[in-house]
Amino acid sequence: MDRTMHLGMILLGAGSHVAGWRMPDAQFGSQNLPLLQRVVQKAEAGKLDFVFFADAVNTGLDAHPGMMLRFEPLTLLAALAMSTSRIGLVATVSTTYSEPYNIARAFASIDHLSQGRAGWNVVTGSSPDAAANFSRDKHPPHEERYAIAEEYVAIAKGLWDSWQEGALVGDKEKGVFVDPAKMHVLDHVGPHFSVKGPLNITRPPQGYPVIFQAGASDRGLDFAGATAEVVFAAQQIQEEALAFANKLRDKAEAAGRARDAVKVVCGVSPVIGRTEEEAKEIVAELASMMDTQAAMRVLSDRLGHDMNAFPLDEPVPDLPPSGMMQGHAIQLTSIARRKKMTLRQLRDYAAVSSGHRLLVGTAEQVADDLEDWFRSGAADGFAIMSTHLPGPAERFVDEVVPRLVERGLFRSDYTGSTLREHLGLPRPAHPAAATGRTMHISG
Amino acid sequence: MDRTMHLGMILLGAGSHVAGWRMPDAQFGSQNLPLLQRVVQKAEAGKLDFVFFADAVNTGLDAHPGMMLRFEPLTLLAALAMSTSRIGLVATVSTTYSEPYNIARAFASIDHLSQGRAGWNVVTGSSPDAAANFSRDKHPPHEERYAIAEEYVAIAKGLWDSWQEGALVGDKEKGVFVDPAKMHVLDHVGPHFSVKGPLNITRPPQGYPVIFQAGASDRGLDFAGATAEVVFAAQQIQEEALAFANKLRDKAEAAGRARDAVKVVCGVSPVIGRTEEEAKEIVAELASMMDTQAAMRVLSDRLGHDMNAFPLDEPVPDLPPSGMMQGHAIQLTSIARRKKMTLRQLRDYAAVSSGHRLLVGTAEQVADDLEDWFRSGAADGFAIMSTHLPGPAERFVDEVVPRLVERGLFRSDYTGSTLREHLGLPRPAHPAAATGRTMHISG
Ligand SMILES: Cc1cc2nc3c(=O)[nH]c(=O)nc-3n(C[C@H](O)[C@H](O)[C@H](O)COP(=O)(O)O)c2cc1C
Ligand SMILES: Cc1cc2nc3c(=O)[nH]c(=O)nc-3n(C[C@H](O)[C@H](O)[C@H](O)COP(=O)(O)O)c2cc1C
Repeated sequence: MDRTMHLGMILLGAGSHVAGWRMPDAQFGSQNLPLLQRVVQKAEAGKLDFVFFADAVNTGLDAHPGMMLRFEPLTLLAALAMSTSRIGLVATVSTTYSEPYNIARAFASIDHLSQGRAGWNVVTGSSPDAAANFSRDKHPPHEERYAIAEEYVAIAKGLWDSWQEGALVGDKEKGVFVDPAKMHVLDHVGPHFSVKGPLNITRPPQGYPVIFQAGASDRGLDFAGATAEVVFAAQQIQEEALAFANKLRDKAEAAGRARDAVKVVCGVSPVIGRTEEEAKEIVAELASMMDTQAAMRVLSDRLGHDMNAFPLDEPVPDLPPSGMMQGHAIQLTSIARRKKMTLRQLRDYAAVSSGHRLLVGTAEQVADDLEDWFRSGAADGFAIMSTHLPGPAERFVDEVVPRLVERGLFRSDYTGSTLREHLGLPRPAHPAAATGRTMHISG
Repeated sequence: MDRTMHLGMILLGAGSHVAGWRMPDAQFGSQNLPLLQRVVQKAEAGKLDFVFFADAVNTGLDAHPGMMLRFEPLTLLAALAMSTSRIGLVATVSTTYSEPYNIARAFASIDHLSQGRAGWNVVTGSSPDAAANFSRDKHPPHEERYAIAEEYVAIAKGLWDSWQEGALVGDKEKGVFVDPAKMHVLDHVGPHFSVKGPLNITRPPQGYPVIFQAGASDRGLDFAGATAEVVFAAQQIQEEALAFANKLRDKAEAAGRARDAVKVVCGVSPVIGRTEEEAKEIVAELASMMDTQAAMRVLSDRLGHDMNAFPLDEPVPDLPPSGMMQGHAIQLTSIARRKKMTLRQLRDYAAVSSGHRLLVGTAEQVADDLEDWFRSGAADGFAIMSTHLPGPAERFVDEVVPRLVERGLFRSDYTGSTLREHLGLPRPAHPAAATGRTMHISG
């Protein structure tokens, strides 16, 4: 097979399962650097494209225990850049509660420190509670958040272009430190931000860090189609994933990009046993330790409605869209309807995978499933979540990855050194170099 | 001698001298990770208390070539935390153009990643140009900047106290992840910020990262007296430094703190030769490569006035205070007056040391000078700047530090593991633990 799949690992604090941290072999992940180094190095040994750290700028007190406490993602990426040499390093940063100059600068810095391995998952922030941490009355509405995000990413790109390649001359003889003709002043004035520039760091090795996105609403998809290079999908059903991927490819095309300019990466949570039985026992063991209140909070958070208001043993009710997290809500309601789940069953399903697709079986079965989704075009790759750390993450690398390599579906070694190269994404040329014309240059 | 001095290294991009980067043995420092790792590891081998990275959130185009381009400091500290194990890691972050939640979080993260080695140099931002990068009409006035800074640091401390020691229980048997009684909600509402909390990371290993400050105006000194644990001074004359240090100790006392709760660290820029002659030749070599325009821009920046308006070969004019960088302005005008310098002489003086005190001589002479200042009480320690990197920084560690150790003025090995321990500063107890009373606890 010509095309090979992309694989990343989603590292969610203590694991994706609400009770994952209680497993006998579980270690606390969120503030445990040696553990994170161990798992990330394992992912690198498996030649995975990237590791990804989700984030929120509030304490998810009411939700997942593994998401309450964690390292700040930008400093974490910088630290992990020193403990690895090839794997991509991706983190979420919201565009709602920070300044584009600061974030563009931090990502440029991480891209330099890691020699071209940074990725930015652009989110607009799914928790309205964050507003109270940032001197705001309220979380901006969905539509406005995306308008801000669009402007924000455009500014970041403009700032990353501040110094064209070759701008830093450093000619000791002639005493020329920089070439001012290669310095570009952004001078952005827009509805939400005014940012002059230039940025005080040279262009990132990748041109721009890779832009990830996970929006699932129509507005989110428009943004992704125009801007994102990797999109996280949370589809649970293959034909829905295919429809989603094609819709996204259409949007990319409509925005003047190639259909394959966006890689669709589906989140999956594999639970692997030596036999299917054993895998099911692991799920049962996790379920037995589950705090059902916490699980209901996770589900309520994903659906954007307090689900305690509904009867547990009746079918999942129809819900109006909430303006938050529409993606997960659509996917979870869809699988509940298709599989005729009760609310209790959906709660337990979502508890294992944090709302992502659950795969329970042998390594061979997991590999079969990923192959099937990949060949169908429903996914360009997968983002693997682990119920807890480090065991399940290591097991995926040890048992599933070699099967995918054997089948010619995944690389046996890195062929490039940057995240863009792993993902088969082009390095964006500097606009001035690309057009050959001179941009607005400061005097 | 009982009391020993504190030593840190100031790493200013390509070096403190405007022409430092042109020296034959100079390497570009600002975006050169291997070079920074080498110098920081050397400082650690010399058992220095800390390395410090200055910062600004704009491109100092008109000023120092070595300050134009640099790593973003928080990501840089996180990376260097992985390359070192004992030395303190300090960076400047302005309180004018960022959100306290984000910065408190990043510093907590660095303190965890480095196991208690983070320090924050709180500045209000000395360049008015930064405003244009942050959707602002203008740089807030001096007084308001300090009012913001005070509120900002108080919020950061409140956020660092979100989780009292022992809050993260992680009892797998009982299924208790956190102890809610040890979680504290800040609920800050003030003139500049409203920040609810709690922070989504546990209390930093040091309680709070060490608070550095470098303000020199009366307003800056009030802030430092009440809040700072280390103060950078730029005094050029010993009796002025002593007066400054005593004034600061008075202010600390007035704020209800111990006189020695604040360590005064004087910035010095040593140029070391095997003989005094050789040291002077190095200064002359640097001067010969100096871009006099750039040097005048550095001086203008330090003085807060465009000095090109004044005659070069006449005495330095009297200038009204500018609202920017009053500290450097006062010190430089003071030494100019005392040494009866012309504007040209002051320009060349400031060019070598970036406005800090210049020491030209043998390692023995440099050690003598530092000993003298230290014994007089004018300084609790010194922050060493190098004209360029890595030679002069390494020479200081190899030649001056052993002399200070021999004289009993500096440690021969680390006795503690955190920056607080190196500096002899107490670890702030959690307010709830300190008073024994229960704080405002979220329901
Ligand atoms: C794999 C995956 C990872 C996500 N990571 C984050 C995250 O780290 N932080 C966040 O606020 N939202 C995250 N989301 C949520 C999305 O950003 C988005 O808010 C959600 O999918 C709803 O889409 P919409 O905003 O277009 O309605 C993630 C979603 C998926 C599928
Ligand atoms: C050693 C030293 C380091 C400094 N580092 C910075 C810095 O990194 N960023 C900055 O904006 N100002 C820096 N300053 C300037 C001070 O923060 C402060 O603005 C200046 O001393 C003027 O004092 P004032 O603000 O009280 O008028 C530094 C000053 C000294 C002496």
